[in-house]
Amino acid sequence: MSWYNTLGPQGDIAVSSRVRLARNIKGIPFPSRMTDEAAQAVIQKVWDALQLSSISHSFKLYKIAEQDKAFVQSAIEKHFISPNLASSGHGAVIISDSEDVAIMINEEDHIRIQTFSGGLNVREAYSLADKLDTLLGESIDFDYHDKFGFLTSCPTNAGTGMRASVMLHLPAATMTKSVNRILSWAGKLNLTVRGAFGEGTQAQGNMYQLSNQVTMGVSEDDILNLIESAAKELCLSERKAQSAIYENKHDDIADRCMRAYGILTNAYRLTSNEAMKLASDVHLGINLGIIKNIEICNLTEALFLTMPGSLGLRPTRDVERAEYFRNKIH
Amino acid sequence: MSWYNTLGPQGDIAVSSRVRLARNIKGIPFPSRMTDEAAQAVIQKVWDALQLSSISHSFKLYKIAEQDKAFVQSAIEKHFISPNLASSGHGAVIISDSEDVAIMINEEDHIRIQTFSGGLNVREAYSLADKLDTLLGESIDFDYHDKFGFLTSCPTNAGTGMRASVMLHLPAATMTKSVNRILSWAGKLNLTVRGAFGEGTQAQGNMYQLSNQVTMGVSEDDILNLIESAAKELCLSERKAQSAIYENKHDDIADRCMRAYGILTNAYRLTSNEAMKLASDVHLGINLGIIKNIEICNLTEALFLTMPGSLGLRPTRDVERAEYFRNKIH
Repeated sequence: MSWYNTLGPQGDIAVSSRVRLARNIKGIPFPSRMTDEAAQAVIQKVWDALQLSSISHSFKLYKIAEQDKAFVQSAIEKHFISPNLASSGHGAVIISDSEDVAIMINEEDHIRIQTFSGGLNVREAYSLADKLDTLLGESIDFDYHDKFGFLTSCPTNAGTGMRASVMLHLPAATMTKSVNRILSWAGKLNLTVRGAFGEGTQAQGNMYQLSNQVTMGVSEDDILNLIESAAKELCLSERKAQSAIYENKHDDIADRCMRAYGILTNAYRLTSNEAMKLASDVHLGINLGIIKNIEICNLTEALFLTMPGSLGLRPTRDVERAEYFRNKIH
Repeated sequence: MSWYNTLGPQGDIAVSSRVRLARNIKGIPFPSRMTDEAAQAVIQKVWDALQLSSISHSFKLYKIAEQDKAFVQSAIEKHFISPNLASSGHGAVIISDSEDVAIMINEEDHIRIQTFSGGLNVREAYSLADKLDTLLGESIDFDYHDKFGFLTSCPTNAGTGMRASVMLHLPAATMTKSVNRILSWAGKLNLTVRGAFGEGTQAQGNMYQLSNQVTMGVSEDDILNLIESAAKELCLSERKAQSAIYENKHDDIADRCMRAYGILTNAYRLTSNEAMKLASDVHLGINLGIIKNIEICNLTEALFLTMPGSLGLRPTRDVERAEYFRNKIH
């Protein structure tokens, strides 16, 4: 069970939650200016600290430079690492077997503890991140300032060093073009909303990421409260928007969702982009009760497991992806 | 069981066969110049002759002027009547319950006996037409000339008064644009190939009609032999063309057929035009072994039974059509 195949709270709209804590080690330069020797020492330090700890999770360490392209791509797709870490020469990531922990090492900061949870569940994710923070802190001396809190490479991350985010599937908000209204509303709350996949402004598969902008001068609990209440409000308004478009355009929406189901579960080949679009329509169809024989979490799992990196970047991946959907979703 | 839900000989390509015999009654002007009184008399004469005959078929008589639009449209769609008869003021059609006989009355000629058979089976169709011709001839005095044979309103139909035709599904010939070659080849054999549905040159759903042009100076057997051998040749070349495109463009064809299946069996609404296109791709997929759980004759039946007239020309017909395909073909 991973966060991407679990239907968590508000799971009809909220796909997953993530918490990230940025930490640096006292006396070692920030990754942008560190030697490879120092970088290797940081990796070892974090790995050793985890081994010493009593946490029951089982971890694996991956030095980015030693991994093949497909692994790196897949780690980006699952949000375990940033594109930034992928291109760094001395970065590493420690991933738990259950895929709920991904600790980036030597990205912008020495340590970025990341934890994942299904649905809208930032508190569960935070609780695990906090535990890891405490465990690592037992054997690592973090760079901490009494007034500013945790020090980070970029000052905008200092203080709590915490970013909480929720991945939300917002097809109706996208269709009705109310996303712009959401962006400005989020900005006023000091929150950011952007596409959860890819670069650009387009939200592939209507997947958005809601996260906090401010990390300093607020407590961890403030951040969790803010994200939680904002995400709940977005879920609520998306649900209303979905009902409204179904009521206003019943036949259009039914046809769109049912065709998407027909293609997604029958096509011989599917690009990643098309699969995301179709899966979004099928997801909407499940929410509206039009499509009954699929679980949202199976659909989300299929999406993550058939992204290009997960399919080994093989040239045959469009055919393999379609085969996966035909066999696992049909 | 009708001809459109029977898989006859060469049924992978040949949908159905039809034979038409044109006859006129001695001493009565051709329909274009007859009074309504005479027209009613002709209708009665044919109907009475059928009642007197020993044929085991059960018939119904429909005077066109008394029918609603949907019935007339449906009769055209099934090729029971011509658009010409549909717009005539005093036309009628006698249809057998098993739908293998449709006798048009007061179209261009007084009587046009039409018989239908599944697949490439013009001989079976002819045998039934010949029987009806004999039966009607027992009580009706046909206009017959020792030198010219049966006389018809338009001289191009005189002689045998016979037209034999075969409906063929030729998706590969259409894709590879070899239809033009087929048209000129048919022309040299004094045969005609045209779209089986609608007006225009476009063959809706890749359905073509092969028929003889010459009715005089040849025997019925000559016509049957010619149509039969030409249709067999077209079936053979279509089969080869289908294998060839599948070999050359395996992924494209597989994807096209499987998507068509997915949409046809899942959409919420389908126009008649789209259903024909999709059904053609699914039919091709069945021929190539890509789609295994559908019978061609069920697909053909669904096509005929969901044409606009068959669905009563109801405004909801696109939704009803999709429902039919979801329930009956899936």
